[in-house]
Amino acid sequence: MSKLTDVPKRILIGRALRSDRLGETLLPKRVALPVFASDPLSSVAYAPGEVLLVLSIAGVSAYHFSPWIAAAVVVLMFTVVASYRQNVHAYPSGGGDYEVANTNLGPKAGLTVASALLVDYVLTVAVSISSGIENLGSAIPFVVEHKVLCAVAVILLLTLMNLRGVKESGTLFAIPTYVFVTGVFVMIMWGAFRGLVLDDTMRAPTAGYEIKAEHEGLAGFALLFLLLRAFSSGCAALTGVEAISNGVPAFRKPKSRNAATTLALMGLLAVTMFCGIIGLAMASNVRMAENPAHDLLDKGVPVGSDYVQNPVISQVAEAVFGKGSILFLVLAAATALVLFLAANTAYNGFPVLGSILAQDRYLPRQLHTRGDRLAFSNGIVLLAGAAALLVWVYEADSTRLIQLYIVGVFVSFTLSQTGMVRHWNRHLATEQDPAKRRHMIRSRAINAFGAFFTGLVLVVVLVTKFSHGAWVALLGMVIFYVTMTAIRRHYDHVSQELAAPEGPSDDSLRPSRVHSVVLISKIHRPALRALAYAKLLRSDTLEALSVNVDPAETKGLREEWDQRGIDVPLKVLDSPYREVTRPVIDYVKSLRKESPRDVVSVIIPEYVVGHWYEHLLHNQSALRLKGRLLFTPGVMVTSVPYQLASSELAKKRAGKRQEWNAPGSVRRGPAQVRPKEPNAKD
Amino acid sequence: MSKLTDVPKRILIGRALRSDRLGETLLPKRVALPVFASDPLSSVAYAPGEVLLVLSIAGVSAYHFSPWIAAAVVVLMFTVVASYRQNVHAYPSGGGDYEVANTNLGPKAGLTVASALLVDYVLTVAVSISSGIENLGSAIPFVVEHKVLCAVAVILLLTLMNLRGVKESGTLFAIPTYVFVTGVFVMIMWGAFRGLVLDDTMRAPTAGYEIKAEHEGLAGFALLFLLLRAFSSGCAALTGVEAISNGVPAFRKPKSRNAATTLALMGLLAVTMFCGIIGLAMASNVRMAENPAHDLLDKGVPVGSDYVQNPVISQVAEAVFGKGSILFLVLAAATALVLFLAANTAYNGFPVLGSILAQDRYLPRQLHTRGDRLAFSNGIVLLAGAAALLVWVYEADSTRLIQLYIVGVFVSFTLSQTGMVRHWNRHLATEQDPAKRRHMIRSRAINAFGAFFTGLVLVVVLVTKFSHGAWVALLGMVIFYVTMTAIRRHYDHVSQELAAPEGPSDDSLRPSRVHSVVLISKIHRPALRALAYAKLLRSDTLEALSVNVDPAETKGLREEWDQRGIDVPLKVLDSPYREVTRPVIDYVKSLRKESPRDVVSVIIPEYVVGHWYEHLLHNQSALRLKGRLLFTPGVMVTSVPYQLASSELAKKRAGKRQEWNAPGSVRRGPAQVRPKEPNAKD
Repeated sequence: MSKLTDVPKRILIGRALRSDRLGETLLPKRVALPVFASDPLSSVAYAPGEVLLVLSIAGVSAYHFSPWIAAAVVVLMFTVVASYRQNVHAYPSGGGDYEVANTNLGPKAGLTVASALLVDYVLTVAVSISSGIENLGSAIPFVVEHKVLCAVAVILLLTLMNLRGVKESGTLFAIPTYVFVTGVFVMIMWGAFRGLVLDDTMRAPTAGYEIKAEHEGLAGFALLFLLLRAFSSGCAALTGVEAISNGVPAFRKPKSRNAATTLALMGLLAVTMFCGIIGLAMASNVRMAENPAHDLLDKGVPVGSDYVQNPVISQVAEAVFGKGSILFLVLAAATALVLFLAANTAYNGFPVLGSILAQDRYLPRQLHTRGDRLAFSNGIVLLAGAAALLVWVYEADSTRLIQLYIVGVFVSFTLSQTGMVRHWNRHLATEQDPAKRRHMIRSRAINAFGAFFTGLVLVVVLVTKFSHGAWVALLGMVIFYVTMTAIRRHYDHVSQELAAPEGPSDDSLRPSRVHSVVLISKIHRPALRALAYAKLLRSDTLEALSVNVDPAETKGLREEWDQRGIDVPLKVLDSPYREVTRPVIDYVKSLRKESPRDVVSVIIPEYVVGHWYEHLLHNQSALRLKGRLLFTPGVMVTSVPYQLASSELAKKRAGKRQEWNAPGSVRRGPAQVRPKEPNAKD
Repeated sequence: MSKLTDVPKRILIGRALRSDRLGETLLPKRVALPVFASDPLSSVAYAPGEVLLVLSIAGVSAYHFSPWIAAAVVVLMFTVVASYRQNVHAYPSGGGDYEVANTNLGPKAGLTVASALLVDYVLTVAVSISSGIENLGSAIPFVVEHKVLCAVAVILLLTLMNLRGVKESGTLFAIPTYVFVTGVFVMIMWGAFRGLVLDDTMRAPTAGYEIKAEHEGLAGFALLFLLLRAFSSGCAALTGVEAISNGVPAFRKPKSRNAATTLALMGLLAVTMFCGIIGLAMASNVRMAENPAHDLLDKGVPVGSDYVQNPVISQVAEAVFGKGSILFLVLAAATALVLFLAANTAYNGFPVLGSILAQDRYLPRQLHTRGDRLAFSNGIVLLAGAAALLVWVYEADSTRLIQLYIVGVFVSFTLSQTGMVRHWNRHLATEQDPAKRRHMIRSRAINAFGAFFTGLVLVVVLVTKFSHGAWVALLGMVIFYVTMTAIRRHYDHVSQELAAPEGPSDDSLRPSRVHSVVLISKIHRPALRALAYAKLLRSDTLEALSVNVDPAETKGLREEWDQRGIDVPLKVLDSPYREVTRPVIDYVKSLRKESPRDVVSVIIPEYVVGHWYEHLLHNQSALRLKGRLLFTPGVMVTSVPYQLASSELAKKRAGKRQEWNAPGSVRRGPAQVRPKEPNAKD
């Protein structure tokens, strides 16, 4: 892996990164952190604002609850991080929440987690890009004026990048993430210095506004509910924490310990940034409202629908660094970039999860093959389409999208932690070593607390957010769940139907003789090659078959056949309607009817062309015939290809496709190392 | 063929029509007339109006030229009909203009005619439907208010009908066509009776309007040009006349004579209706303007852009029958219906021409097969798409579309008649019988006059219409011409590359041994069947090949292999990236490298499923592998299908598709009768 000092050269040269072969690179912690943490760290760009926004419903006086809410989020973050540190040690294979739930709670829990994660990927794209656009918009007004357009454009760009297979590289993540983290810390420290040491007054651009409370003087249960809602929104800071548990194999050794350390570091960074931003927001008197157009008052007058409410992080940066200052612009750009990278992690996470689900036959089997471009492409297009739809429906409004976001995350948190408790119970049942037992009991306690706490948060999120949009996320989960169950059921059904019979062998599978039939339309090189190959196969009978579509051509064929002295009998089928398929199928069926235990081998000369449009001009009847023959029992269908000069082109293109890099390979780590074996063995 | 008295029953029952088998029905003249004449007869719905429209440019006084223009159209019609009567006798095979031009003037002329006819089909759809909508709109205002929408809806409806393969039936054509013809004749006679006998004053709804001449008092060359333009527009009445020459095989015997008689009858009906409508328009003082919004004045004030200019035929019907009377409504409905039927003839004509062009390798070969649904579908969608585009661009304005229409028709008229002159010249060179010679000389004279006259009209049309839109039609012709030339060149090129070498046989085509490789993923019924079939083929070597995608599965496979005692050696290829294709391709290549003259036969067990979505779940790697293997030289690829229970469904669907009726079969007549031969012969 490159050192960070190599970064500029790498960026300039680029090619070197691409030629890195999968399996030769493992991530050191300093690169793993940005690769896996761009998602959770970037969420501090929107989570603090969401807390203030909800509190504003009870008026600006409710803002003084925000430190308490931040504290609750910090406690939750520590709980979740501590819990996942147990996961990382117990499941170093990178299966993540799905594997934990599936192994310990059974396939239904596993599938629930998988559905939740799939929904989560879609929402990660939608929320991160919307928020990135809002942050970019605080520096470039054009962007926020054409929010939906810009957000969809970014989705499109990421989609194209991932379809083309631009390889995810550690350094690509490192720069914006470290710039972002450094920027936020500089801001917090400089803000603290100005506020506490210089005793400067920092004023956010909205500091002069008043908030019209929707519900003035809330108390009792209503206030509690509001505080819980604010807390739920703050929990958005926790999204993406579980990513590391999927990526343990990508770490350098000792994998689990390095992953656990990275996880702890990430948690620490996230809560510090989260609290720092909330603190600065309070100090600089940021004012945010759920409906700024009506509830935000400038000298007693609502600001109106033209008002653009900038994200907290950008308001704070303006207060600390000054509007339009270099540091303000750098931070805005880095924030947007990190958010787009966070969206990109969903593009990478999908194939990883998809491949695991395909292995368990919940998704089409070809997803299992690493680097199957077509399968990945379908997944990426599905993901992008769903995210773009959400962005369009919710007008790229991150606040509204976040209402949908957190459900899936906490479903998988809760199930995964519950699974871990079961895991330790199972191990404790057999473990004798008292030291290990103590360790396990401690881990179980952590996971049990994690399960309880995240479960509680899940209930809070469901109660406070259901009608605000969480139902959409639940609906999405149900759709994924039902689809994957149906796919699994189909595979099981087919596999049952295909199961080889017990005992030596079934009678019906044992044919007695082979009749070979070579289809001939005219005597050209492919036909001669097919005849030559067919003769080599020494079947019981061999004949050439032609369909009389045009009497003149058929006559010419017969004459040339005799003239060349081809020693295979030529049979001609009549076809009054110039069809090819039906006469051949009927003939094959008649052969089978005469001797039902025999097999008919239909040999079709084909020529291979290079361009897709050439396919429209050739082999169409052969293709159709092959399709129909497959439905005819007791038939084998053989293509004898003849490569035309233009096919070389297509071969080259196919070769190029093979070199494509599947998205998500860096975070997935190298392929599992298997005992060394000779390349091919008998 | 059914008698006309069967019609109501047929319409109610329907199924009976469908079960008619192609080849058992031949058209009597009374059915052939509506089948082939709906296109030319329907054009009297718009042609007279176009004449008046152009004349109005010189003011209402120019209307008195309209009888002269009608006379010129009548002369032209008689010339064309007389000429085509010669075609019908000389070429009873139904090849039509394309065959005549191709045979007598060479392939370039043939291809020009073909391009012209293809453009013509597109325009027939666009013009007929737009005019039909306008006629319908004279009775139902909603239709004319949503012209483009309604026109596209009708195109869509016709497209779906033809894609589904609703069989064209003679009776379907007979009713509206005869109602239309009868209606127009009743109108002409009743109008003549009222005007000449009762001395009633008939007033068209526009009779009170004045026309503001764009060019008052035109004279000399300018007037001549205007009259020629009006004549060109009137020539729209001739479109579709050539249809009968394509359909001779569909007539009862004596085919050519019946076709010639029908042609004469059609010509007579068309000119009578054309002149009758012009006469009534003059008598009832119909006023039409090219730009009615500006040039049509109601008491000196322009009628404005809300004004809808109804077609002449509906204005005349209103004058004769009275607005809103039953006869008026029936005629409007019949007119619209006949125009839609005329559009439908293009849907039927396209595959007929396409099949002939495919036979000459100007279009993809599969079009040649009669009833190849996929090929027809593509053609129909192309036709409908192009027509819908034109309708949309020209806002379903039949007047503007007609500017494009007549070029193609007269290109094929002229070339076809010129070809006929050559035809007679060739025959006269050898013919000795003086009676026959006299007959031929007479025919040649008719065709020569036809060629001269239609050529002259072509020049007039080009000169007067080029800038009004004829260039679009010419551009379309060029595109078709270039595409078809390219396709032909491609086929010629491939056929050269494929040509079998002279002499007994080429060395490279003669392999020496076959290595068979059966691909095995697991031991199930398809795999066992493939192994059993492979053993029957007695190749020189036989082995089973598996790719190690999952070590546990591979271990299980090996164990079961030994346990079942399968007597074929099992080779396992390693695949660190869980790929299947590359290791297999590499292995096959290595076999070929060891012994380059040998052939590798790759046998792939496949299971056949019923639903398209099941395909997404199965056989994807097999499909990809097969695709890649076809590019590998010295390989034969064999599929051994295993039919799952659900494949029965797909088989049934495929069978149903086979019974589909190709559009255009009624007018194409039965397949050519060939000398009786046994069904299959050696």
